[in-house]
Amino acid sequence: MTQLSGSADINSKYMDKHEIVCDMGEGFGKWKMGPDEEIMPLIDVANVACGFHAGDFNIMRKMVQLAKLHGVKVGSHPGLPDKMGFGRRKWDIPADEVYNMVLYQTGALKAFLDAEGMRLNHIKPHGELYFYVERDESIMRAVLQAAKVFGVPVVGAKNKRFEQVAHEEGVDLIQEFYADVDWNGEGRLVPVAESRAKTPSIIHDAVLQAGTTDATTTFDNKPLALNFGANPILLCLHSDMPTALGNITAARSAIDELNARAAH
Amino acid sequence: MTQLSGSADINSKYMDKHEIVCDMGEGFGKWKMGPDEEIMPLIDVANVACGFHAGDFNIMRKMVQLAKLHGVKVGSHPGLPDKMGFGRRKWDIPADEVYNMVLYQTGALKAFLDAEGMRLNHIKPHGELYFYVERDESIMRAVLQAAKVFGVPVVGAKNKRFEQVAHEEGVDLIQEFYADVDWNGEGRLVPVAESRAKTPSIIHDAVLQAGTTDATTTFDNKPLALNFGANPILLCLHSDMPTALGNITAARSAIDELNARAAH
Amino acid sequence: MTQLSGSADINSKYMDKHEIVCDMGEGFGKWKMGPDEEIMPLIDVANVACGFHAGDFNIMRKMVQLAKLHGVKVGSHPGLPDKMGFGRRKWDIPADEVYNMVLYQTGALKAFLDAEGMRLNHIKPHGELYFYVERDESIMRAVLQAAKVFGVPVVGAKNKRFEQVAHEEGVDLIQEFYADVDWNGEGRLVPVAESRAKTPSIIHDAVLQAGTTDATTTFDNKPLALNFGANPILLCLHSDMPTALGNITAARSAIDELNARAAH
Amino acid sequence: MTQLSGSADINSKYMDKHEIVCDMGEGFGKWKMGPDEEIMPLIDVANVACGFHAGDFNIMRKMVQLAKLHGVKVGSHPGLPDKMGFGRRKWDIPADEVYNMVLYQTGALKAFLDAEGMRLNHIKPHGELYFYVERDESIMRAVLQAAKVFGVPVVGAKNKRFEQVAHEEGVDLIQEFYADVDWNGEGRLVPVAESRAKTPSIIHDAVLQAGTTDATTTFDNKPLALNFGANPILLCLHSDMPTALGNITAARSAIDELNARAAH
Repeated sequence: MTQLSGSADINSKYMDKHEIVCDMGEGFGKWKMGPDEEIMPLIDVANVACGFHAGDFNIMRKMVQLAKLHGVKVGSHPGLPDKMGFGRRKWDIPADEVYNMVLYQTGALKAFLDAEGMRLNHIKPHGELYFYVERDESIMRAVLQAAKVFGVPVVGAKNKRFEQVAHEEGVDLIQEFYADVDWNGEGRLVPVAESRAKTPSIIHDAVLQAGTTDATTTFDNKPLALNFGANPILLCLHSDMPTALGNITAARSAIDELNARAAH
Repeated sequence: MTQLSGSADINSKYMDKHEIVCDMGEGFGKWKMGPDEEIMPLIDVANVACGFHAGDFNIMRKMVQLAKLHGVKVGSHPGLPDKMGFGRRKWDIPADEVYNMVLYQTGALKAFLDAEGMRLNHIKPHGELYFYVERDESIMRAVLQAAKVFGVPVVGAKNKRFEQVAHEEGVDLIQEFYADVDWNGEGRLVPVAESRAKTPSIIHDAVLQAGTTDATTTFDNKPLALNFGANPILLCLHSDMPTALGNITAARSAIDELNARAAH
Repeated sequence: MTQLSGSADINSKYMDKHEIVCDMGEGFGKWKMGPDEEIMPLIDVANVACGFHAGDFNIMRKMVQLAKLHGVKVGSHPGLPDKMGFGRRKWDIPADEVYNMVLYQTGALKAFLDAEGMRLNHIKPHGELYFYVERDESIMRAVLQAAKVFGVPVVGAKNKRFEQVAHEEGVDLIQEFYADVDWNGEGRLVPVAESRAKTPSIIHDAVLQAGTTDATTTFDNKPLALNFGANPILLCLHSDMPTALGNITAARSAIDELNARAAH
Repeated sequence: MTQLSGSADINSKYMDKHEIVCDMGEGFGKWKMGPDEEIMPLIDVANVACGFHAGDFNIMRKMVQLAKLHGVKVGSHPGLPDKMGFGRRKWDIPADEVYNMVLYQTGALKAFLDAEGMRLNHIKPHGELYFYVERDESIMRAVLQAAKVFGVPVVGAKNKRFEQVAHEEGVDLIQEFYADVDWNGEGRLVPVAESRAKTPSIIHDAVLQAGTTDATTTFDNKPLALNFGANPILLCLHSDMPTALGNITAARSAIDELNARAAH
């Protein structure tokens, strides 16, 4: 059976139950992306866009205040400075500039948290910046070093190498699980565009399966060990799919069920 | 004799000698504005641009590190989001959005200060944002309230109304003096474009005059009382004039002379 | 009875029947505004955003090709360089710079028309740039002079002064009518935010009324003479209202009915 | 002896003497790059930046008017939409989007030429867009196809493959020569940062050598055949080097000398 990286002990340090995280505040000016107001009450943790790939200073304040209202933890969601490409175009940027841009964006978000008396929960790189982190170790270290300035963990999909480098840099890495896209046989996520559409009930069942068996099923029907062990799962759901609201509602119910069982 | 606003007691709270402040880091990408590297060793306080009217995340880090090297205090220099107009075009923006944009920019700068173990010294609005503050009390309050989030004073030219409103908002206002442009008979600065060119020796003498007589001379040769009293002067010099380096060198020598006299 | 400006003879020069115009291509990158694909087959003329307040070089080509497919005429829809404010924030920009920005945006759009063998139909200023034109005669002349470079008419709501100045500048002004927002007693449009919601059937009836009686009804139930005379009406509909598609479908049917009657 | 690509017949179609071309208008807003006003009288052809990597709608008009005043031909100098990186950062952008961005920028510039009664002379891709063209044939074809819409040639350094593909696409390629940076033994330009500084007199001599012997000397003192044959040379000089004005003045004198000799 294919196995995801073997540890998620850090998750226990930051969460005492399974939680849901979503990318939030990814509109710009008058343009909307996901239904932020409807999603916020359904989640535990928000990755808030910081104005580079999406978001702006007005949306950021709105997201922070909405998160406060619903008791949602807030992390920064820094991206490449590319609104037209939604931070998804590949771009050669040196590691020291990536460090600078993560500091800039996260500092900007932290000001809104300071204004509301909230604390910064984590950093989760967005889109191509996230893939850049996975692809290039100098970029990985740049993001981790920026996180160290704020004393917060980084959030990412389960990945042994990322886990090791984070450990070397002295930064905690919280590990996520995805249930609204397919997994392939090597234990990697299938890109959204190529993944089969998931109905809310499929997502509901996949979350229950993950929480009870610590495994999921790949697109070709093979078991994939998640290896969260006894650690809580941070479930990441896409907020920009047309079906986002139904997906998240279904996932919320499954996560609540898992947490209720664990409480007994 | 025309009189500037009558108090500068706040200055004593933050400075124990006369100091020089300049706008720094106002290039963008490959474009330069003033000679930042040459100016930094000559000043006491830097207003660092935050990426809206000028500056970017790379320049900001460079400025913060250069300031650290030379023992220079750093404040944020937020502007309107208008690089093409260098933050000098009039723009109708509601007060709550101005509050948001000052939080965003100052938070971004603070991250670089945190990374270097430095503290944020103050906030000084740039260009049209500064004039907007002077013109519109709701904007004035928005900037002051943003400063309150960071627990730092605001810096501005001597202005009775600004002083009063800052007091109401519970924010300190440090008051500046300018020696490289003309003053008119009403005690207001003449815009740079209409002001007579000042040689370094004129600036040197104007600084000595201000420090010793607490007065300056208007463009039509009338005395103008500055009313700094026993409080130290924060002397602001333009870093983007072609003659900036000579002006600042001359002012540095005059300020040092005043401080040396005061020390005896 | 209140009267709109008394002439629309220019309309006859450019149109031989009543036509519908909409603002199109007002998304940006991954962000959408109106349902462009659904609207394009229902209209006769498109104002295509040019990348300053909305739109980008990819969306512009898509709009031009879609317009070609559906036999829709294309004009430029230049705006202030303010994506975050969707070109709706007041901004002090000198007339010569407005001339430059209209040239730039319209020239950019014209390249896509050239590539498809289409011709530029007109220029219609967007949002605050349109209000700036109505408010400031130097801006009005700047836009008209830019239109003269391309040899195309400008499109605007009926307005006597605009008509006169266009005549002085030697530029044709095509005059529009609006049916999806309220009119006040002085013959001015009520801003969208304050206007009563219009159902498709109200819009359908208002278009028929305009076409048959050359008048409309104000929000307080008074008659307002439109004074199109025998000239065809250019009916402008908002493409960014949530109800846009239903509104435009209803208006299309009314316009077709008017044109069919006129053909007999 | 190393040889540059063997033909420059196209040059004869567009030039009847040796000419100098420079990148112009690469400031932004208040920021300057080269000394445009001083350079314009010294050159024959200007590549004018179009607002993506540098330049803006005000600078573009100024450059076009300055070119008209000095009888300078104007081509567009489109770049990647990356002002912060001055269009020099590597970025993955699909060929159809590159086609769109070249259309957009060149169309924008052409509007200013239309306003002055001038014609578009050519297209010269800037910085990383130029390297992208040399590296990726789909990008090369995208730029050539955009040029075809305007019916103008493309300008580039001598390159056999580029020449062939331009021929296939039915677009003329004018070929340039550089004298202010080093050439290596393979007949490629050494990047500016690694090249030895050239004094005006070295540049003067290199231009005379090129014009009289159809060859230049590599950094390690070997001959390099240029193969312009009887065709005029389009000499490209950097306008953003600190020594630009001296370099261009020296090159002007050498080019004038070559043209004077050829006239006899």
